[in-house]
Amino acid sequence: MPNDLFSASLSDKHNNEEGAVFAPRFDASGLVTTVVTDASDGQLLMVAHMNADALKLTLETGIAHYWSRSRKSLWKKGETSGNLQTVVEMRTDCDQDALWLKVTVAGDGPTCHTGRRSCFYRQIVTTNGTSSLVMQLETK
Amino acid sequence: MPNDLFSASLSDKHNNEEGAVFAPRFDASGLVTTVVTDASDGQLLMVAHMNADALKLTLETGIAHYWSRSRKSLWKKGETSGNLQTVVEMRTDCDQDALWLKVTVAGDGPTCHTGRRSCFYRQIVTTNGTSSLVMQLETK
Repeated sequence: MPNDLFSASLSDKHNNEEGAVFAPRFDASGLVTTVVTDASDGQLLMVAHMNADALKLTLETGIAHYWSRSRKSLWKKGETSGNLQTVVEMRTDCDQDALWLKVTVAGDGPTCHTGRRSCFYRQIVTTNGTSSLVMQLETK
Repeated sequence: MPNDLFSASLSDKHNNEEGAVFAPRFDASGLVTTVVTDASDGQLLMVAHMNADALKLTLETGIAHYWSRSRKSLWKKGETSGNLQTVVEMRTDCDQDALWLKVTVAGDGPTCHTGRRSCFYRQIVTTNGTSSLVMQLETK
């Protein structure tokens, strides 16, 4: 779905990695992985996915939209909770198959559906070849 | 490939989100998305993918291993360049379909194959409905 907001993916590696054309590489499911951090302090908030429609809406409105893989539907993050994400800055990576959004979260601030600020609230701790999850304070 | 380092994915949502069992949800391609930040300052370095073998090796050795989707092979990041990633902390998210590694990068520090510290060196700038990519200093 090329448009003025982004192009079809580029076949030339140099252009893709060093050029000025935004040409995201959607995967076989039509999705691009998106890392979301808090613009105020860099805290990793969540990892989500965008399809072309979600990306277009995000670029047009400045409010983060994703594709919900579980619900199989477009997802305006925070539409129900009020915790909308305003995009402060958006980046892509070298091969343009991942996006990074720095956002400001509206309202009382939780990003995770569990009510926590970040989805990454558990540390993986491995001792003597056995792993378990431990709840952690959120730090960068 | 369940083992003592991680379990098969959990069907119970509460256990999956609040429990202590590390049970990553690999996608249809057998991969889990992994966000990699620098443990020293929180800089987002890269987004990669792990299959079960890469995850097991990472947990066993404390050195980050990934699955290279382009090369279709196990990838000990930095094996050629010397810029190995030592895992300082590892987390999973609420539904355990994403991982977060905080790492220390060995050697002269670049993570991106282009020689840059981070793969996210281009900002997406949208003006009057048209997007382009602009090189940026790396900031959180």
